[in-house]
Order: sequence, then structure tokens, then C-alpha cells
Amino acid sequence: MNDLRMSDSGRALYDRVKRFVAEEVDPITEQFFTMGEGREDRWSYVPGQLELLEGVKDKARAQGLWNFFLPDAESGEGLKNLDYAFIAGVLGKNPLASECMNCSAPDTGNMEVLERVGTPAQKQEWLVPLLEGKIRSAFAMTEPGHASSDARNIRTEAVLEKGEWVINGEKFYISGAGDPRCKILITMVQTNPDGPRHSQQSQILVPIDTPGVEIVGPMHVFGDDDAPHGHMHIKFNNVRVPEDNILLGEGRGFEISQLRLGPGRIHHCMRSIGVAERALDLMIRRGGSREAFGQPLALLGKNLEVISRARIDIEAMRLMVLKAAKAMDVMGNKQARVWVSMAKAYVPEIVCRIIDEAIQIHGAAGVSQWTPLSRMYANQRTLRLADGPDEVHHMVVGRNEMGNAGYKPQR
Amino acid sequence: MNDLRMSDSGRALYDRVKRFVAEEVDPITEQFFTMGEGREDRWSYVPGQLELLEGVKDKARAQGLWNFFLPDAESGEGLKNLDYAFIAGVLGKNPLASECMNCSAPDTGNMEVLERVGTPAQKQEWLVPLLEGKIRSAFAMTEPGHASSDARNIRTEAVLEKGEWVINGEKFYISGAGDPRCKILITMVQTNPDGPRHSQQSQILVPIDTPGVEIVGPMHVFGDDDAPHGHMHIKFNNVRVPEDNILLGEGRGFEISQLRLGPGRIHHCMRSIGVAERALDLMIRRGGSREAFGQPLALLGKNLEVISRARIDIEAMRLMVLKAAKAMDVMGNKQARVWVSMAKAYVPEIVCRIIDEAIQIHGAAGVSQWTPLSRMYANQRTLRLADGPDEVHHMVVGRNEMGNAGYKPQR
Amino acid sequence: MNDLRMSDSGRALYDRVKRFVAEEVDPITEQFFTMGEGREDRWSYVPGQLELLEGVKDKARAQGLWNFFLPDAESGEGLKNLDYAFIAGVLGKNPLASECMNCSAPDTGNMEVLERVGTPAQKQEWLVPLLEGKIRSAFAMTEPGHASSDARNIRTEAVLEKGEWVINGEKFYISGAGDPRCKILITMVQTNPDGPRHSQQSQILVPIDTPGVEIVGPMHVFGDDDAPHGHMHIKFNNVRVPEDNILLGEGRGFEISQLRLGPGRIHHCMRSIGVAERALDLMIRRGGSREAFGQPLALLGKNLEVISRARIDIEAMRLMVLKAAKAMDVMGNKQARVWVSMAKAYVPEIVCRIIDEAIQIHGAAGVSQWTPLSRMYANQRTLRLADGPDEVHHMVVGRNEMGNAGYKPQR
Amino acid sequence: MNDLRMSDSGRALYDRVKRFVAEEVDPITEQFFTMGEGREDRWSYVPGQLELLEGVKDKARAQGLWNFFLPDAESGEGLKNLDYAFIAGVLGKNPLASECMNCSAPDTGNMEVLERVGTPAQKQEWLVPLLEGKIRSAFAMTEPGHASSDARNIRTEAVLEKGEWVINGEKFYISGAGDPRCKILITMVQTNPDGPRHSQQSQILVPIDTPGVEIVGPMHVFGDDDAPHGHMHIKFNNVRVPEDNILLGEGRGFEISQLRLGPGRIHHCMRSIGVAERALDLMIRRGGSREAFGQPLALLGKNLEVISRARIDIEAMRLMVLKAAKAMDVMGNKQARVWVSMAKAYVPEIVCRIIDEAIQIHGAAGVSQWTPLSRMYANQRTLRLADGPDEVHHMVVGRNEMGNAGYKPQR
Repeated sequence: MNDLRMSDSGRALYDRVKRFVAEEVDPITEQFFTMGEGREDRWSYVPGQLELLEGVKDKARAQGLWNFFLPDAESGEGLKNLDYAFIAGVLGKNPLASECMNCSAPDTGNMEVLERVGTPAQKQEWLVPLLEGKIRSAFAMTEPGHASSDARNIRTEAVLEKGEWVINGEKFYISGAGDPRCKILITMVQTNPDGPRHSQQSQILVPIDTPGVEIVGPMHVFGDDDAPHGHMHIKFNNVRVPEDNILLGEGRGFEISQLRLGPGRIHHCMRSIGVAERALDLMIRRGGSREAFGQPLALLGKNLEVISRARIDIEAMRLMVLKAAKAMDVMGNKQARVWVSMAKAYVPEIVCRIIDEAIQIHGAAGVSQWTPLSRMYANQRTLRLADGPDEVHHMVVGRNEMGNAGYKPQR
Repeated sequence: MNDLRMSDSGRALYDRVKRFVAEEVDPITEQFFTMGEGREDRWSYVPGQLELLEGVKDKARAQGLWNFFLPDAESGEGLKNLDYAFIAGVLGKNPLASECMNCSAPDTGNMEVLERVGTPAQKQEWLVPLLEGKIRSAFAMTEPGHASSDARNIRTEAVLEKGEWVINGEKFYISGAGDPRCKILITMVQTNPDGPRHSQQSQILVPIDTPGVEIVGPMHVFGDDDAPHGHMHIKFNNVRVPEDNILLGEGRGFEISQLRLGPGRIHHCMRSIGVAERALDLMIRRGGSREAFGQPLALLGKNLEVISRARIDIEAMRLMVLKAAKAMDVMGNKQARVWVSMAKAYVPEIVCRIIDEAIQIHGAAGVSQWTPLSRMYANQRTLRLADGPDEVHHMVVGRNEMGNAGYKPQR
Repeated sequence: MNDLRMSDSGRALYDRVKRFVAEEVDPITEQFFTMGEGREDRWSYVPGQLELLEGVKDKARAQGLWNFFLPDAESGEGLKNLDYAFIAGVLGKNPLASECMNCSAPDTGNMEVLERVGTPAQKQEWLVPLLEGKIRSAFAMTEPGHASSDARNIRTEAVLEKGEWVINGEKFYISGAGDPRCKILITMVQTNPDGPRHSQQSQILVPIDTPGVEIVGPMHVFGDDDAPHGHMHIKFNNVRVPEDNILLGEGRGFEISQLRLGPGRIHHCMRSIGVAERALDLMIRRGGSREAFGQPLALLGKNLEVISRARIDIEAMRLMVLKAAKAMDVMGNKQARVWVSMAKAYVPEIVCRIIDEAIQIHGAAGVSQWTPLSRMYANQRTLRLADGPDEVHHMVVGRNEMGNAGYKPQR
Repeated sequence: MNDLRMSDSGRALYDRVKRFVAEEVDPITEQFFTMGEGREDRWSYVPGQLELLEGVKDKARAQGLWNFFLPDAESGEGLKNLDYAFIAGVLGKNPLASECMNCSAPDTGNMEVLERVGTPAQKQEWLVPLLEGKIRSAFAMTEPGHASSDARNIRTEAVLEKGEWVINGEKFYISGAGDPRCKILITMVQTNPDGPRHSQQSQILVPIDTPGVEIVGPMHVFGDDDAPHGHMHIKFNNVRVPEDNILLGEGRGFEISQLRLGPGRIHHCMRSIGVAERALDLMIRRGGSREAFGQPLALLGKNLEVISRARIDIEAMRLMVLKAAKAMDVMGNKQARVWVSMAKAYVPEIVCRIIDEAIQIHGAAGVSQWTPLSRMYANQRTLRLADGPDEVHHMVVGRNEMGNAGYKPQR
């Protein structure tokens, strides 16, 4: 549990990924985003933009830097979560890097789920094109109007009628559903409202072009619509899909969620640490180069201590995330659940604080478009709410502590 | 100093303002903003929009609810800062209210400055139309590229050539300079680079349409351009204005700043408290109406304590701001400087925290466009940087404490 | 509510108290404590020690500076809570001052209770000698072994047998019960275990020399026994007192508590602010006079900001406590309950932080006997637990907020 | 650097130490301290007390569990810092354990210094009896009256006169100097006041019974004198020792300090984590077993989140300390200096917070003698001041960050 080193094969891959990002992805990144800037339809790509991306994807595929996110999968030798955590740190530094190697969320989680619980037909139809990077996907879980941190609160209902699931309900913050390439929604629904708490939900495959799937519009994050990826607001109005579109079986939706959430959360955390590193780097440069009252800002007041605390917290966070990844490797995702919650409750809150301090040292420029800080803050702030708000993860950790000591408090 | 009640005349005005906002301003507010929504030129108003506003301004003028911000001015009997602080709390709740009564920043500070130090000609040309609400204005102080919290850091230079000031330099975050009605910039420049530290600057009137005034574009705040008001990035390229456009005299720019900053900061703080009240109100409604795990959110975990702490902090902040306003009334703006710095360093930081907690209890909706919280956060976050970052105000307060005890540390 | 000035008569008394402390109490203080130092029986006074004190008490009595704590009492013209709050600030600065003017806790609360709800016989026997300063008293409420923040948790039981209350149970942290002059315990007992939640308790007068009253020993606070005052651990073993010793009536113990707690808490808070002032003063002197790395400590790192934040928080706390005192004057103790809880939950936590920062700037001397800081910390830390821990007061404030908004959450 | 596992030999020793503490030390611990309780001379042991301890020491010596603290020493195969960090965690749980295996501070640091830089004669006279556990020692560095965090501030002076060092000055918080078995003081003195900053100091061996060594008395920590170990206040009045008593050479005192401080700080941090574990354990037991308002305390308000945050912080701290220990093993003490400062600035502050939260959940019992919490707090609070206050370590870390980025700010 305390050996937090990459494996030899992991390090080899890590080095190759790092080089690929530097040599192939970094050079096209600015061009890719600049191309899209003045486009008329925010929910599309301009001609040539996707071609640029596909060119790099082809190279990655050719070099075998492709789909390596799948841990311990039957379809490959698998990569340890610990190794992947290090690699996620690299991927987190370039916004296109994950996609170029077909390792971008939420496709990763969706592919992992399909790979593990999909039927041969489901795999053929959806997993194959996803693994090939030909389509994209989304995971429709969160609902407006009630706290979805409580699994019982899924209200989108699916009723079986004549061999078809009829789905009605409303979801929001469905990330990636704005992309024109997004073809399939893995949708969390309530199929057994009277069943036991964790057996009321199912997950159903809903092609995004099914009649009744209404993309209401994008949800904003601190005013940003994140087009064309988008965090979409979607209504399901009598959407009908074949009975066979269910994953794993009725009432097993919660069980599938458990499968996907651990690794995804750790990847997020590792990327967050990359973001914190960037904020600290900006803080240091500003503090070292800007002067006031005849001193570099870094030497004024508490600034040097702020920098010290940021560094200390970053190192502590990194070790915690690596430990959680290792726990998944050693104990399995289920047993490591508490470690994952610890990392998830710990990291984004501190990263937000570090970015905030970087903003402060930048003065007005810190909230402006001249630094990436306000956008970084908005993204990280959202992570404290997504995949379970901090409070739910603290509840998991706190209860586990009580349970280990022989207390089983139930509220 | 401890009598923090409104005066009788202040309360009468307070009641009238409150009623006017409810009866005249609130009813047009949504319409005003909706009208502007899909406009092509973000830096303009659509036909009818300003007319709607002017209608309400006429009523305010007719009722004498006009220009009452001017404290102790020769042009009127004057309103105490304490009274105005209460009224600012009312004005802060509606985004159009201040403007409807010709009491909106930065015009208020500009008018106050012109009223106190302007020559008869300057008053005739700029103060009269400002007092009549016919034009608007901006205050061009902050500069990119160096810390403007240190007065010595003003680098925009003005040189006297043949009876004209020739101005070169760069300013940013010039609030209000995006409005098509903005006609005049009070511009802080360096005229005496070799003079004593606080006598190097001057303030000069620069009509916005003077050749060489280049509005580069809007500065964003957490991605928002705040059009058409705008926080503009402006370059001065060999801008020439008559020698008489200087205010008060060469080298007196810092002195004029002192005049305007006290009241303005207090008004901001009082509006911030109104914002915190709104965040707490949203937090309470969400906590009372939303359920998870079979309980209203307000009863889960630390939420009730979060609500309690927000209420306590709001009351403490309100008393502090009222005390600072009273201090200005009793001691004068200069002596009350430390009280103003205390309020300024104290309030926005806590208000940001309260809004952040309101976001957290709202889940994903908290960062979305469905609540005003993320925009409120962005605005308040900016106040920790504007008019002197928190750190500078803490330095003022800390030095004053040391000085009172007989220590005169100079770094 | 916002007029936080002393009344004219309050200010006159304030001035007289201040002068009396300076002229009569301060000069004997060090001598009083030095006399007691090497005494053999820690729970006694040495010959001459009490005589020294009585001499000053005689002067106070002669000057009418006596028992002025009683607010709005029938026995006098009464002092507003707001006035008393200011005076408590003065009394808090000298550890003998309150007692010299017969205004020391817990006698003040006990006298107030006796004065309001005592029978003529009870008043004759206990109130008269207390008002004359001839005896002292204690209030026996807190119990070990269960959370006494919940009134239902009083387990010391009193059963009526043949005209006598028979009391059995255990109390701890009974402040003042170590003093040899302490003669009477107002004891909170459970008389009606099956009654409604707030009618189960009664308060009974128990002379401390009643057979069965066992003073087990002193409870420590951070290792300090606070002899001879003491915070005693007491067992009641079949203690029998006459039926008439009950106060107000059976089942009215909770009601009496409400009476005493408001003012007492505010006095504590006001004294705490005096303590914070002292800590800040020590911090400033240390920061101004000690050097490291060629600079006064006050100019190193965050220290000046720490000083600033301490000053700001002290002013905010002072205003909050004055407001709560004023609320008691205007609304009555019951309605002002939420204001008192706000002050109680707000003040000691921040005062602890300020003392802690003063310790830090003193280095090792800060935790030593060479400064009063560690003792000040221990005392203030205890206030976060006494008279209801912070959490209970936050619960009161939070519920009130919810209730004001129309939500009545009950857990 | 990321392999934070014990070595095989380290684990074997760890297991043996753990068993020895459980089987031999734990059984005598309570007896040892009870024996000493009512003793007349607080600065002595009662008959039989030391014999009890020596019996266990004999067993440890016989089993080879002796002096294993010496890392990589010529006198043994050495133990990695990482291995020792784990073992320190075990030793920290019993207050006698370190001494029973001759691994207690400050002897460990003193022995390490003597072993590395002592002359054969110095080793014979002092190292041999220390290694045999026959005498004890102290390290006299800290001085009252000026900030000793700045090395230049050592004012105790040693002047060479006729082959003898004549020492004058004052030290305080000299831990262990109260023990009757303490025979030798390694004393930091100023020998070269005009030399370069880090070459002004020397370290000199001063037998404690040398004429002129005046033990003024004990320094308290939150009122506790920690007798008979003691943190003594010592004056050096014309103390004369032979010229040969200098360690390593004139002006090399600072260099020797660097040698000892790294490992000692890490051992302290690891013990602190053991203390935090104990506080969390007490918090959990109290939270699980005590009820209020019909619920276990752990389920009320924020308590479960407090428990969760304590667990998360403990795991993060543990990983940080292990990483710092590993850094010393891999890079050497000097290069690992920043990692040690990170751990030192990070751990005690958080441990204090965790203990404070444990106090709060215990109510009044938390500050009493009925729980060890207030004493634990006092000890940990002191660690934030000893061996360099937090601020100095943050300065080291902050400067290192700036330096790594190419900025060399000097104040």
C-alpha cells in the first residue's frame, strides 16, 4: 500500500505519453481553439477543425497510445490505477491530450462500463465505435429539482411497455452531450420505485437521436457554456428504446455506478493537482516579477507563506491521490471506496483555495481574461459539487471511521 | 461614535427611496434587461431601452430623489455618510436603482470631486450635465503591468507642451467607459515623476472622444464583459487636452483620490452586505425546501451552523460598516481612513465566503445560470482587488495599530 | 436598536468604576495574589488576605459602587444591560475588580434569581448576606457523564419525602464552590422525569454544609485547579433539604435558567473582548520590540496582517456584544435570546484565535509563565464549552433563521 | 522517492519494538508514574522508580533493542530514516517507550552529534555512558530575550582565556536539564561575533555541575513544569571549561545543528501523528457513546465531517512525513531540508486543530484532567514554536519555490 511508484511498464507508457503530448498535441492546441473562435453555431466545429484533431488521433492510434485508460480489462493487459494516476497528471496539462488518445471523460467511464457489463450486441453497436474514437457519449445521471447525491432521488422513470422502455424525466449537467459527435446516452433511470434503496435504479442505453430526447440547452458554469462540449439540460419525453437496451439488468443501476465512479474520481483529482501546480506556478511568476513598495510581491506580507502552503498542500494532495489509486489496485474499487472519498473530499476544496490565492496576487488581472485563473477556478469549484458534493464524501469517510470503531450510527 | 441610528431626515429619505424602488424601479427592471438581451452590438442600448429608464429618472427627479449622494456638499444640505450607508443597502438590492436616482458609481465619486475641486468652467461643462443625468463618466486610475495599489506606480504620463497636456499610457478595468453615454474620463496621470511620493500624480479631465483615446476592449470578470457598462481597457496615444483640464493643480492627484475613496468604499461595502443577505436568503430557501436522505438539507451535517455563521457575520459586518460611516461623519474622511480600511478589508472576503457556501448548498445549480450566485460571487470577488486589495488595507490597519502603540515600523 | 451609546447615568457610573479600579483595586491586586502563593491549604486564604479585600469592599460599599449589576431590579433604579456591558469591559481587566464591588459571577446570577423569584424567607436567609458581600454562592448545573447542553439530560434527582427533598446525583465544574466563603448552592435537579421536556427540572437551595454534599475535588482547566475559587466536582449523596428550599416551584427550573443566562453570557463576552484587547496589546509590543532577520517581528511575513485582523475582529465583536445587550434592553431577555446566542457563539472562538496568534508571535515565551497568554487561552477556551457549547448556540441561531423564513425543521 | 515502504529489516525491527512496548513497557507505565506522584522534591525520582525503569532497559539491551536510532552510523549497520519514522510512530504512543530503548530526545540528537563529530576523548567521556544509558544530556540552544529562529541571534558568548572557554549567557526551554541524571549540556555559543552569519557560533560540551551553571528554574508549558524532565531556564555565569570541549571546531556550531535537526524534526512529526490518532480515537468514542437531543453526538451538526477531515488530514500528514524521511534517505539531510521544513510547518498546526476539535466534542471534560487532551494540546502547541516556529519553515519552503523558478528574493 505504501509503494507509490509507477510500475516499469507504467513508466514507459508515461514517458511515451509525455513525449506525444509535447510533440504532437501541444503544437496543434492553440490552432484548434483559435479556429473555433468566431463560429456562428457554438454547438458545432468549423470545417477543418475536427480533421486537425483526427490527424493527431491517427498518430496516437498508430503508436498504440490509445484506450490505455481501461484498467485490468479483458481486452488488454491493463494499466494499474496508480500508473494511470501519474499519466492523468500529464493529460491534465493540455485540454486536448485526453481526447487525442481516446482517453477523455465521460467516454472512458462509459467504455469501461460497456466493456464490463455490456452484452455482445451492445458492445458491437456502441463499444466498438467508442473504442475506435468514431463517436462520443455522455452519462445522464444528475437531475435538477432534487438532491441527486442521494441515490433514491433519481426520478426519471422508465416503464416497460410492450418490449420497450418508456422514459420520462429531466436531467442536467450532462457533460459532452452538446458535442455533435455524441451519439449515445447511458441514462440512469428509476425502474423499481418500491424496491430496496439501492435496487431502484437501472441504466439504459438511449441513442441521442431517439424521438423525445430534447436537448433544452446548455447549463452554465460561472457564466460559461463550455460549447461545443457542453453540460446539457435534457428532457426525456416519452422516449422509447428496446427492452434490450438495459445494462446488466433491472435494478442494477447503482451497482454499475459504483464500478465507474472510483477511477473517474481519481483521474479528476489527479488533473486537479496539475491545475494547482499551474496556479502555483503563475503565483510564483507574478510574485517574483511584479513589484510594489519597492519589493517583489512575493516578499510582501503573507505572500511567501501562501506560496509555501500551496506547495505543501500540493505535495500532500498528490500523495493522497496516489495512495487512493494504489488502494484501488490492491483492494479493488469497492474496498478502496473510502480512500477515493477521502481524496475526492480533500483535493478540489484545497485546489480552489490555491487558485483563489493566485487570483489575489494577480490583482484585477487575476479575474480577467488575461490569465486562465478565473476559468480554472470555475472548473475546480464545480468539482466540489460533481460526482457527489464534498459533504457526501465526508459522510462516507466519517461513517467508516465510526464503523471501524464499532459504532454504527444511522440517521 | 456609537450612535449608529439614522437621523430623522435620513430615515425619511430612506423610506422614500425604498418606496420608490418598490413602486417605480422594480417594475421595469426585468423588462429593461430583457430588452437588451439579443442585441447585436453589445456596447449599445436597443431602441426604447434608455427611454424606459429615462421615464423613471424623470419621476425620481420630480420627487427630489436625485443626487442625494452628495454628503455635506455646498450644493445642498447634505446627507450624513451614516444615513447614506443605510440607503446604499436599499439601492444595492436592485441593479438599476442607483442610476434611476442619479446615484450610481463611478459618477457619484466624479461628481463629488468636480463639486469640491472643479473650477467654475469645469463645473459648467461636466458637473452640470452629470448632475442632470444627461451624460455619464468614468475614473481612469488602474493600470495593467504594475501594482497600482502603490501610488508611485502610476505610469501614464502627462507632459505639458504648448498649453496642452500630452498624455500617453494604458489603463484597464475602467468601469463604465463602455457605456455609449460616457463622455468624460477623470484620468490619473504622472506629471512629476521626480516629486515626493504623494505629489507625483495629477488628475486630468479627458473627454472620451479626444483623438488618441483608444478603447481597446472590455476586461472580463470571471468571463463576463458586463456590457454595455463595461470595465474597459484603454490606451492613451498622444492624447492632447487643454492645460486647464487639470483638476485642483499639478501634483495633487493623490490628494483628490483620498477625497473620493472613503465614501465610495463604504457604499460598496454596504451593497455587499445586501448581496450577502440575498445569498443567505437563497441558502435558507434551498436548505428548507430541498431534501436528501429523508431530511431537509438545512438539517444535514454542518448546514445549520453554516447558516448561523452567515447570519452572525452579516450582522457584525453591518455594524462595522455603519461604524465606519459614522466615523467619517464624526472625524472627517481623513481621520476615518482606518475605519474605512477596516470595513473594506473585512467585508468582501466574508461575503465571498457566504456566497460560496450558498453555492455549495445549491449543488450544481449553484454554479449555473439558474441562480444568481456565480455572478454575485464574481462581482464580490473583484471587490477584494478593487480600490486597493485586501492586503493594502490590512497594511494600513496594522501600521495604525503599531503607530498607536508608539512603534513606527517602516519597511 | 442601533443606538449603542451608554446612557448619561451609565457613563457616570462607568467613570466612577474605572476610577475606583485604578485607585483602589489595582494597588492591592498584586499583593493579594502574592500573599496567597505559598499557602499550605490551597483551598483557603492566608491570614490578612481577605482583610485586605474587605477593606476595599468597604470603600466600594461606602461610595455606592456596590451591587450595581442588578438590571431593572425592584431593589434599585437598575442599570441597562448596555451600560453594564461597557462596565463589564472595565471589570474584566482586573481579576479582583468584580468582587470588590460585589459584582462577581456566579453570585451575580444567583442574587438576580433570588431577587426575582425568592420567597421573603429565602431572600432573608440568602439574598441579604449575598447582597452584603458576607457569603458567596455557586450554581450547580453541569453534570458529568452526559451532555448537559440538552436540558433533558439533568440526571441529579430530587424526590419529595416527608417534607424534604432528597437529592442524589453528581455535578462538576461548579465554579466558586471551592471558596471557603461559599455557603449556598443553587442546584438544578430533576423532579419530574415524566413531565414535558422543559418542565422536568427544578432549582433547589442546598446549603453547602448539608450532610451528604461531598466536594470530591477540583476540576482542572488545562491543568489549572483555579484554587481557592475552584471549579468543583460535587456528589449529592442522599442530601436532604426542606421542601421550602425549592425556587419558584416544581418543574420551573428551566424557566429560571432562562432568566439568568442572557446577561451572564453577555458579561462574559464583554470580558472576553477585554482579554482580546490585552492579547493584541501584547502582540503589538512583542512585534514592535523584538527583531529577527534585521526587522521588527511585526514586519515579518503575515504578522502585520494578523495584527490588522485582530483589531478588525475586536471592533466587530464589541459592536455585536453591545448590540446584544441593547437587544436585551429593548426586547427583553427572552426575545433577545437569539442575539445573545449570536454573541456567545461568535466571541470566544475568535478571542481564542487572537490569543493563539499572540502566543505564536511570542515564541516559546508565549506558552510559558512569563506571559499571561497560556492562562488566558485556557480560560477563553473553556468559554466555548460553558453555558452551552458553540454548537448549541449556532443551532439556536440557525433554527431562528429557518423559522423566520417560514421553515420549521425539527430533527 | 515514492517507495514509502519499510525495508524488510526495518519491518522486523518495527515488529520487535511494537511487541516489546506491549509486553514490557506498557505493563510498568502506570506504576512508574503513580510512584512519582506525591513526591516531595519534584526534581527527583522516588526510591524504586528508576530501578523499575532500569529493569526494562536491561531487557531491551539484552534483546538488542537499543540505540537503534542512529541512522547509517559507523557504529552499526544503521536504520533508514524511513524505517525509523515508522518506529517513531510506535514509540510515540507510550511516554516511556523511547527511554526504555535508549532512543529518547534530546539524547538521540546529542549522541548522533558526538558519534559523528566527537573526538576520541569526547566520545570516551560522554558518548560511551550515553550509549549505555547511564547518563542523560541536554542541548542548550534557545535563548530568552531575542528571536533564536535567527541564528545570528545567539548571544551566549564564549571567550577563550588561557586554554579555557569562559561562557556567559542565558538559555531557556532546555529540555531534560531538570532530570537528576542529566550530566552534560551541549551548548550553543557565540564565539566569532564578527564572522560570517553562519560561522559565528560554536558548540561546546559543558558538564552540568561546572561552577557557574545556574539552573534558575523550570519553564512552564501552559502551566505545566514537566518535572522531573523539565524545560529549564539556565544561566551561565563565567562558566569555564577546557578548550578541548569544543565540538568539531570554532565557528562550526551552525553546521553541527544542521546535522541533528532534520531527523529530530521528523521523529517529532511522526510522534505528533500518533497523538492525532489518539485524539481522533477519543473523538470517535465520545461521539459514538454520548448522546444529546436523542442522537449520538457524532451525528449532530458538523461532527461527522470533523471526524472525516481529521482522518483525511492524518493520512495526508503521515504520507508527508514518510516522504520527508525518504527524502533524507535518498538525498541526504541537507538536500532534504526543504522536505523536512514542509513536514515541520505542516504537521503540528493540523494536529493542534484536531486535538482542539476533540476537546470541543468532549465538552468541559475536554479541558479537564479526566482526558489527556489539554496536555496533548499544550505539548503539540509548543512544537509549533520549537526547532524553528512555523513561520521560519514556511519561509524556507517559500524561498525554495521562488529559487526553483529562478527568483532569488532577499529581504
